[in-house]
Amino acid sequence: MSSESKPTAPPAATANFVRKVPDGDNLARQVCVDCGFINYENPKIVVGAVCHWGDRILLCRRAINPRRGHWTLPAGYLELHETVTAGAAREAWEEARARIEIETLLAVYTVPRISQVQLMYRARLVSEDVSAGPEGLEVGLFKFDEIPWDDLAFPSVRWALRQFSDSKHLTDFAAFTNPPGETGDF
Amino acid sequence: MSSESKPTAPPAATANFVRKVPDGDNLARQVCVDCGFINYENPKIVVGAVCHWGDRILLCRRAINPRRGHWTLPAGYLELHETVTAGAAREAWEEARARIEIETLLAVYTVPRISQVQLMYRARLVSEDVSAGPEGLEVGLFKFDEIPWDDLAFPSVRWALRQFSDSKHLTDFAAFTNPPGETGDF
Repeated sequence: MSSESKPTAPPAATANFVRKVPDGDNLARQVCVDCGFINYENPKIVVGAVCHWGDRILLCRRAINPRRGHWTLPAGYLELHETVTAGAAREAWEEARARIEIETLLAVYTVPRISQVQLMYRARLVSEDVSAGPEGLEVGLFKFDEIPWDDLAFPSVRWALRQFSDSKHLTDFAAFTNPPGETGDF
Repeated sequence: MSSESKPTAPPAATANFVRKVPDGDNLARQVCVDCGFINYENPKIVVGAVCHWGDRILLCRRAINPRRGHWTLPAGYLELHETVTAGAAREAWEEARARIEIETLLAVYTVPRISQVQLMYRARLVSEDVSAGPEGLEVGLFKFDEIPWDDLAFPSVRWALRQFSDSKHLTDFAAFTNPPGETGDF
């Protein structure tokens, strides 16, 4: 890298985008007609965790849309300059005031309709002292047969819970993926 | 979702961003002062593969910067609405005219300085008929002890090749991560 760092965003007040295929590319992008800056749009990464305490699993009830009132796993968008495991631990703190210790990668899901890649970890709760963050109505620790299956927020929450249960006795296993034929849509 | 879909980008010619912390957030974002659109910037996903044919591994020599002239694995940015494995297969085609069959997830790397998450797969070449794509000078199939270790493009290429070698006899293993203490920087 040279000492002159490249801009990562166009000058804010002058962005004047048109949609066109840049030279050497094969997909249309947003290109600034003034400075040539290309605003590449790419899928976003969600990081989260199935957090366990003994035989119970941490779930959060959403206070915000989409799916307000439904139960989910602590998860959210990875931030710039953050490692994936740090992001999963941050989300557990923000959404459930939970301190966690990441154990292994449970699953990689793709939800292509909304251009989302989800990295879901298996994690141990360091303490059972958990509580709802600002985006939650409540949190709970559920035994597997007490999980509110009919009130889960997203298909991938159900996948992660089932795959966690299927693999909880294992220490070394291939990360799960979307179940066959499932796209993550309702 | 309501029938009125939310805009995913601001009206192109009117974006008038300032950097501020949106209500309910805790990090500064680019916010349009006219319409309130928040331009969230997030890490990008690179998908790629260690592609094998018998005891040889596919490498590509870069025709573009960064690291022009150095050897790399076929890999690149995941596109909108693409699944991770489809993206890895597309990159193998674009960079080495290689048809591949994804076997398993080899590794998840984070390079926080450049906000990049890399998903590297293990894949079988369907044919040894490979050739350089438009961003490559040449491609080659290398036995492990013939790999040009001193001329690899990025640290994560070295990690993936070593971890592939360590796990090639396994069918079911936990995805590797950055080696301890390594950030992906040179």
